[in-house]
Amino acid sequence: MPKVAVTLASSHEMPLVGFGLWKVPKETAAETVYNAIKAGYRLFDGAYDYQNEKEAGDGIRRAIDEGLVKREDIFVTTKLWNNYHQREHAVPMAKAQNEAWGLEYIDLFLIHFPCALEYIDPEVRRYPAWWMDDEGTVKPAKIPIRETWESMEQLVDDGIVRSIGVSNFQAQMLYDIMTYAKHPISALQVEHHPFLVQRELVQMANENGIAVTAYSSFGPQSFLELPPAFSKRAKDIPLLFDAEPVKAAAAKHGITPAQVLLRWSTQRNIAVIPKSNNPTRLAQNLSVLDFDLTCSELQSISALDKGLRFNDPGFYLPNHPLHIFA
Amino acid sequence: MPKVAVTLASSHEMPLVGFGLWKVPKETAAETVYNAIKAGYRLFDGAYDYQNEKEAGDGIRRAIDEGLVKREDIFVTTKLWNNYHQREHAVPMAKAQNEAWGLEYIDLFLIHFPCALEYIDPEVRRYPAWWMDDEGTVKPAKIPIRETWESMEQLVDDGIVRSIGVSNFQAQMLYDIMTYAKHPISALQVEHHPFLVQRELVQMANENGIAVTAYSSFGPQSFLELPPAFSKRAKDIPLLFDAEPVKAAAAKHGITPAQVLLRWSTQRNIAVIPKSNNPTRLAQNLSVLDFDLTCSELQSISALDKGLRFNDPGFYLPNHPLHIFA
Repeated sequence: MPKVAVTLASSHEMPLVGFGLWKVPKETAAETVYNAIKAGYRLFDGAYDYQNEKEAGDGIRRAIDEGLVKREDIFVTTKLWNNYHQREHAVPMAKAQNEAWGLEYIDLFLIHFPCALEYIDPEVRRYPAWWMDDEGTVKPAKIPIRETWESMEQLVDDGIVRSIGVSNFQAQMLYDIMTYAKHPISALQVEHHPFLVQRELVQMANENGIAVTAYSSFGPQSFLELPPAFSKRAKDIPLLFDAEPVKAAAAKHGITPAQVLLRWSTQRNIAVIPKSNNPTRLAQNLSVLDFDLTCSELQSISALDKGLRFNDPGFYLPNHPLHIFA
Repeated sequence: MPKVAVTLASSHEMPLVGFGLWKVPKETAAETVYNAIKAGYRLFDGAYDYQNEKEAGDGIRRAIDEGLVKREDIFVTTKLWNNYHQREHAVPMAKAQNEAWGLEYIDLFLIHFPCALEYIDPEVRRYPAWWMDDEGTVKPAKIPIRETWESMEQLVDDGIVRSIGVSNFQAQMLYDIMTYAKHPISALQVEHHPFLVQRELVQMANENGIAVTAYSSFGPQSFLELPPAFSKRAKDIPLLFDAEPVKAAAAKHGITPAQVLLRWSTQRNIAVIPKSNNPTRLAQNLSVLDFDLTCSELQSISALDKGLRFNDPGFYLPNHPLHIFA
């Protein structure tokens, strides 16, 4: 039986395969999540930014109400958006997000990006959260990451969230948080696929007890369905599904290229959160723990690395005002 | 007359070409610096780690005493080493460094690396500063960068240093410092050459009024003279001096490849700090402001970029305990 969960620094367990809620329409999210639980999913990866927390929570509660699962079988990750980094906003926002899920507590709460933007009252504009204010301007706010991290810690102490972490952070910022953290950084969620392996960042996280979750595991494929501003970089890049070492491993093991890409991550203890609205693929994505790639297959897939990032706000914001991965 | 200085955010001026004191032997440093002033150098880039601050100061004071230059003509940069990040150590250490230079004040003081290591009493082991304690262990210390930055600010307020900045920092850490800085980040010193262009980091610095200084402008060449642990990466890489666009520009303008590499930086407003113990090259390196590369030459040299870093402590420390550029 392969390893199906990682133990976080907080001592809680996190499944290695989950269902990502990015790009899941609000209208179908409850049904999608309910069906995902039926298919065997236990981890759901959400965010305030994805605009479907309440609906995802509805789907989970339906499954609980029907006796398919118990609350403790489910692992909910969600994220704090950039406009709410200030302590007086972060804590109430997390509580509101927890209310939206309606599951008593959040398993893992992440700072979505390492950049604070000016507050937008959710009573005035709840969604989209997005990067810009109503005038289309990106307005950074002078809120140190430490203030936001300490708000996360307060949420643990208040029993609102069980584990805390960050997303899209670089190593230097992780080291800095570690100098003042009272609760450990349990998780780091980053873009991770064979075109963007970030070997050093993963190694740093491993060495420091920070569990890594990959987003956009399929590389360019994850972005093709988005509007042109997001997909334009991906359109010019060959699909990872067509990359030779991925196709070869798929053929050898009798699985799909998507399954190869997910197993390439989980076999190295990196959690994955694919999403699919297609029931067959949904099931396929989950069953990526019952075969092993060979060491040489893992290496030949990792060798596809070209440091190629698709999700950088600089690519899709006007005038490129943020360079958060530089 | 080309631009020969940049105005820092602190409002002080910094020359675009300076003399780097890394790898300049203590025994010859005073003479080398004195001769560099005679040759026209006005900026000297030192560090506690380079073990030659007192001797460099001796060379500058000799030139001042002989009436070659005045103190205000000279620009001294130096850096705080990793073991002295704590406030109670950073401030006395900077004062001791200032005493060593013997020039009343330091023009620009940088945090050398974004990682704090456990204190080593300089009365017990002054040099080498290095990364490890006497047992050969790298011991990180839990000192937030904010504490170190605030110590830098105190040094400005105390009149010990005029401008402050950082070296080897990533964008996320720069953004974070900007949320709490009372004095601006005047300068960022990073490895920068056509194999490691870091376009986004430079752009981020430019947008935020942070002057960039390139170290190791010659790429692999800068590391070949070092012991094997440092030079091994460089040995396998073709020299930038032999790169086609560099050779072509050198031939066209009747200059050396080294001059092309330095002008490639300064023409984009990135300061350079080459060192040479050879009088001819010392003079050549300084005279890189009186010709211009064409836009297309600049671009073809930048296109040599391969994200290739030579100076990463991870490469030469045992067990790779730090991943500061991940």
